[in-house]
Amino acid sequence: MTLSTQPYKGARDFYPEDKRFQKWLFAQWRGVCEGFGYEEYDASIIEPVDLYLMKTSEEIVSEQTYVFEDRGGRTVTLRPEMTPTVSRMVAGRRQELPYPLRWYSIPNVWRYERPQKGRLREHWQLNVDLFGLETQQAEIELITLASEILKKVGAKPSMYTIKVNNRAFINWLLGDYLGLDEVEVQTVVRLIDRKNKMDQPAFEALLLNTISPTQRDEGVGERLLAILGAASVADLPPEVREHESCKQIETLLAALQTAGVAGVVFDITLMRGFDYYTDIVFEVFDTHPENNRSMFGGGRYNGLVGQFGVEPVPTVGFGMGDVTFADFLATHNLMPELKTETEIYAVVLSDAKAIHKAIAGLREEEVRVAVGDTTKKIEKQLKAATKLGIRFALFMGDDEVKEGIYTLKDLDSGEEKKMSLERIVSTIKAL
Amino acid sequence: MTLSTQPYKGARDFYPEDKRFQKWLFAQWRGVCEGFGYEEYDASIIEPVDLYLMKTSEEIVSEQTYVFEDRGGRTVTLRPEMTPTVSRMVAGRRQELPYPLRWYSIPNVWRYERPQKGRLREHWQLNVDLFGLETQQAEIELITLASEILKKVGAKPSMYTIKVNNRAFINWLLGDYLGLDEVEVQTVVRLIDRKNKMDQPAFEALLLNTISPTQRDEGVGERLLAILGAASVADLPPEVREHESCKQIETLLAALQTAGVAGVVFDITLMRGFDYYTDIVFEVFDTHPENNRSMFGGGRYNGLVGQFGVEPVPTVGFGMGDVTFADFLATHNLMPELKTETEIYAVVLSDAKAIHKAIAGLREEEVRVAVGDTTKKIEKQLKAATKLGIRFALFMGDDEVKEGIYTLKDLDSGEEKKMSLERIVSTIKAL
Repeated sequence: MTLSTQPYKGARDFYPEDKRFQKWLFAQWRGVCEGFGYEEYDASIIEPVDLYLMKTSEEIVSEQTYVFEDRGGRTVTLRPEMTPTVSRMVAGRRQELPYPLRWYSIPNVWRYERPQKGRLREHWQLNVDLFGLETQQAEIELITLASEILKKVGAKPSMYTIKVNNRAFINWLLGDYLGLDEVEVQTVVRLIDRKNKMDQPAFEALLLNTISPTQRDEGVGERLLAILGAASVADLPPEVREHESCKQIETLLAALQTAGVAGVVFDITLMRGFDYYTDIVFEVFDTHPENNRSMFGGGRYNGLVGQFGVEPVPTVGFGMGDVTFADFLATHNLMPELKTETEIYAVVLSDAKAIHKAIAGLREEEVRVAVGDTTKKIEKQLKAATKLGIRFALFMGDDEVKEGIYTLKDLDSGEEKKMSLERIVSTIKAL
Repeated sequence: MTLSTQPYKGARDFYPEDKRFQKWLFAQWRGVCEGFGYEEYDASIIEPVDLYLMKTSEEIVSEQTYVFEDRGGRTVTLRPEMTPTVSRMVAGRRQELPYPLRWYSIPNVWRYERPQKGRLREHWQLNVDLFGLETQQAEIELITLASEILKKVGAKPSMYTIKVNNRAFINWLLGDYLGLDEVEVQTVVRLIDRKNKMDQPAFEALLLNTISPTQRDEGVGERLLAILGAASVADLPPEVREHESCKQIETLLAALQTAGVAGVVFDITLMRGFDYYTDIVFEVFDTHPENNRSMFGGGRYNGLVGQFGVEPVPTVGFGMGDVTFADFLATHNLMPELKTETEIYAVVLSDAKAIHKAIAGLREEEVRVAVGDTTKKIEKQLKAATKLGIRFALFMGDDEVKEGIYTLKDLDSGEEKKMSLERIVSTIKAL
């Protein structure tokens, strides 16, 4: 039997050119997070399946987890998301940790889905969480941080929209204000979450179908549809605008303007899939007509840490996936041009001890040197260097060792120059 | 039900202080590998179980894999090692890739074992592989690189021994020279591999037991035991020393001396567990009496890439685990002291727009700034900064904004100084 050379379906091999992009992307993410004082954490990819039973969306747990029994009979799963794990870790040191606590991580997460554009079975996801702040200082900071990531990779505000809503507001609106019961509220929330996947008449029919005949007769359906049509907070009925949970949205929008965050709008239909969000939610959408989709999002989830039997911790967090993010960059021509980090290809023409020393000396000065196959002819070695994308070839033979002067060839321009090791180091560093 | 806050058994949570060490370690590994022109690759943690059936050690595949069936009925496993994966990837692009090909990766790998010192179920493993070199240039480079990693973290040659052997030599010695059949050779190799786990009399008894009565009568057992007692190549019988596979060992030892690699010795009992090694193998041992164990190793495996139905590629590689490596560092007092990378804790005393601008300005200059909880008293905010290990507190109120002069407090010394944002940046950068 010949083994396949393909990776597992829906997962990726990262050949060096792919890994280079991933390293670049993670460096952008890390740079911004650490600039805001966030510290990186990590955890095992295996978690007990129980961790996801309560608060992760039902679809993910029952249809998409990579669940299995280990050799000791424990039912475990590859993590489908990081939020339950980070909540577990904070709960484990609830008392000792200093708040506000700023943590980020870039875990790989697994979901058994049909692979398609922007969705693979394995992806890496930046998770940024701020624990211990009751006030909107948390939402403002996280939305600012998210927009700084976009700025850092060269995105302009016209390329995306940051939509904001409030789960507490939706719950009040559907429950207390419109009089739907708890089950109806949940059904309506789920329906609105899938609104973009159907046309308007189908959505309206389904919506009217979820509320009781009495309520329909009282015009609750029409009122709800009218409210869902609001393009801004100003479009809402005055008694709705006056409610505390609605005011929170207005306060946040104003504060984000003060903080200089562009492109933020209110969207009453924004729900976010996860059941654990309690208050403000936000989601960033690509505005490009060819990639007009959700890129990433997050919100406040004040209840998760408390699930572990400790005092609850107010938390705001968001997650950002590498596949969707790369699609955004590609759509807007923001992909970086990345080359190999190897700077010199040493064409070694002698087995003198001094050659080892010379190469070791270059490496000590942090010059990256790959050595050619010494059994191959010079031309073949230069071909290999070019194929690897390495810019300089360095010829090292007995004569060169004796004089301490080597020939450095720029493979881009073809130019050759004789120079000492010190000069080689400074030439490379100057680039 | 209250959920547990513990990680999965045998796996680790990486709280920021743990992650900081991991990032430091990986940076050391990456620095050395990239200095030698190696490029990073990566792959999915899920692989089909078939990938390991042929060449990974039997114990690992049948007793230690995290094997399960996915929702599509594929039998898959979390990778127990990276070598089959990297061979698969090279085979997949056998024709296009430039040789010598230098690749490294730091994957997490999973083995279901009883967790103990130096062994967890999940660990991260640096894998370094050099493809396409038939000559000992490959072995010399990889053993040099491994010793450079040890040097980089501050290890002295007295702290470790690099043992070298040759699988081809052992096969010739046991088979052609001593006349054992193939099955006996394999049994003896496995026995020698476990030699250190038993006492000498038990080892000798088991060894004599594996060879046929006729051979025992002919004194094959005694000859083998005498050969296994050789402390150096010079101790071997002349006809053994003359064999090509034995000469390879001597050549390599001499070449490593020329290359300036210290602490390399011949060890005829060194086998390495994996079945895929074909020629030179090497393994690095800690010499400290309290941690006298194998740290990492590797060797030449010329057959793996060819298993995928392409032309074989000569390969030398090694793997180095994070848990064992950390034990080595701890034993020799080489653990680094690492602090938070956050430089400033901003104590914000105003909600002026200019404060946002000032903080954003510091971050643009790559100063890392965490902001305190603005609802808390100054003292409480300073306490949080100290607990986080952040050195400087920056006081930012309306007066400061107006003047453009802020108070920077060194929380180590208690010293306070008023300065402009530019001075703050240069003060931080100068550290």
